[in-house]
Amino acid sequence: MLDYPLLAALAAVIREGGFERAAARLGVTPSAVSQRIRALEERVGAALVVRSQPPVPTEAGARLCAHVERVRLLEGELAADLPALAGPGPGAPALPVAVNADSLGSWFLPAAARFSEATGALLHLLLDDEDHTAARLRSGEVLAAVTADPAAVPGCRTRPLGALRYVACASPAFMARHFPQGVTAAALARAPVLQFDRKDGLQARWLRRHLDLPLAAPTHQVPSTQGFLDASLLGLGWALHPVPLAAAPLAAGRLVELLPGAALEVPLHWQHARLGARLLEALTREVAAEARRSLIAPDAGIAGLAGEG
Amino acid sequence: MLDYPLLAALAAVIREGGFERAAARLGVTPSAVSQRIRALEERVGAALVVRSQPPVPTEAGARLCAHVERVRLLEGELAADLPALAGPGPGAPALPVAVNADSLGSWFLPAAARFSEATGALLHLLLDDEDHTAARLRSGEVLAAVTADPAAVPGCRTRPLGALRYVACASPAFMARHFPQGVTAAALARAPVLQFDRKDGLQARWLRRHLDLPLAAPTHQVPSTQGFLDASLLGLGWALHPVPLAAAPLAAGRLVELLPGAALEVPLHWQHARLGARLLEALTREVAAEARRSLIAPDAGIAGLAGEG
Repeated sequence: MLDYPLLAALAAVIREGGFERAAARLGVTPSAVSQRIRALEERVGAALVVRSQPPVPTEAGARLCAHVERVRLLEGELAADLPALAGPGPGAPALPVAVNADSLGSWFLPAAARFSEATGALLHLLLDDEDHTAARLRSGEVLAAVTADPAAVPGCRTRPLGALRYVACASPAFMARHFPQGVTAAALARAPVLQFDRKDGLQARWLRRHLDLPLAAPTHQVPSTQGFLDASLLGLGWALHPVPLAAAPLAAGRLVELLPGAALEVPLHWQHARLGARLLEALTREVAAEARRSLIAPDAGIAGLAGEG
Repeated sequence: MLDYPLLAALAAVIREGGFERAAARLGVTPSAVSQRIRALEERVGAALVVRSQPPVPTEAGARLCAHVERVRLLEGELAADLPALAGPGPGAPALPVAVNADSLGSWFLPAAARFSEATGALLHLLLDDEDHTAARLRSGEVLAAVTADPAAVPGCRTRPLGALRYVACASPAFMARHFPQGVTAAALARAPVLQFDRKDGLQARWLRRHLDLPLAAPTHQVPSTQGFLDASLLGLGWALHPVPLAAAPLAAGRLVELLPGAALEVPLHWQHARLGARLLEALTREVAAEARRSLIAPDAGIAGLAGEG
């Protein structure tokens, strides 16, 4: 079998973000950690860690770390059956999961909290655009992902979660200032609009879908789900917000819809590694249950399908 | 002088995140955009854009984009003096600014909204750790930054903003479950703790400072300021939260301090390019005013100093 003390040193350096913190976590000296990683690099015949601040895994290093996390997950389950084997708290397995920012900001966390309360397992959440979370699964960086991509990643199961519904909103003061004659094409070309970051094409899609207009307006970039909502409330610009977050300020009159009823739905999928690990199954159940409560049900014709990669 | 139509094509590809969107924004065909960038690369004698999805600037490309943004900023001011020169909305200058997530989530946006309302200028906010925002300024990616680093970046002015105060909190249910005998060293070694990402050493600093303990507990990672707070409210773990965000849930009894009064203060600084641009001065005034309202005043002995790099 592989030399797991060496692999554990590598995983600790990446997970803790440094050689010294890894050493503290493993209870050895930093130079022992360095020696283990050099020994592993000699055996593999390739560099595994870029010695930057924080250290970053090479492609080969990331592949080995992903393997360690999988083994740790399976060990965690074994310990549940054979409690005598279970180590103390710090050894509890951590599930690396990629989530898009709007899901994390609007519906994902209650599922995460119930899962963690029931199992005692830890979650290492990683944020990325819903169009890019599947790549994190493909690279082995995470074991599960909320993704826009319905095509199963090799070695993964996929299931539709339903759609996150977005509405275009602005503050009443912003509406009065920028749309005094209504939401016209001329006003839309001048009124500032928010964009999460430059990957965010949601506002442009909404304009094309509902008004057949290009996005030509001046654009602020605010890369945070809550910051995005706060910026709309403060009148920086109009933007698309997930309904679970926008519902309360809309009801309170602090936000107004640009075109009432003109929503955009982004179908989301849950993909997870086919490891047969009970922790992943438990998280999947909680995520699916929360999605049923908070998202728009997937089309009945698709709901029953669960693909395999 | 440099060939600005070529430079504008480069800046548009990076800003819009794609050749087609850049073409739409510039009102030309995508192949015209490609030709302009190839022409610029031939003149510079180096690749300027990595043709990935989205396209990413090389070091030389980023340097040229930063130059274009600076020129655009100065043009925006010229247009304020000579209105006949002013183009339509989309040409409005955008100030690229790096902000740490906790500042964006807790005090920065009201300053941004007042600045934008007064000047009509756009903000392109970029998130990074407060220890890394200065590097974004150094690379020319942004023109101003909220940073933990007081040392002026070359070509920049720096001023202390005051400190963001953090308190260690958890939900009452979490306290009852994990600290029934109080916040003891043994309980702290087992109770799950939140970490923003693996760069986040704030919880470890708090433990060292107030209890002289290492951070040995199992750790969840939740990389979002609001998500971090929500995760504490849901009982996933204890964590340090900025006082401006934690004050309301603490007052409502939905969060409890682990050690009442044991805070941690993170001094923040504002650094901006010494361009003599009025827009930067206007933003600096609003940021300083909001910092006076929301942050802990910097030590009186330091308050008057404003360094130059």
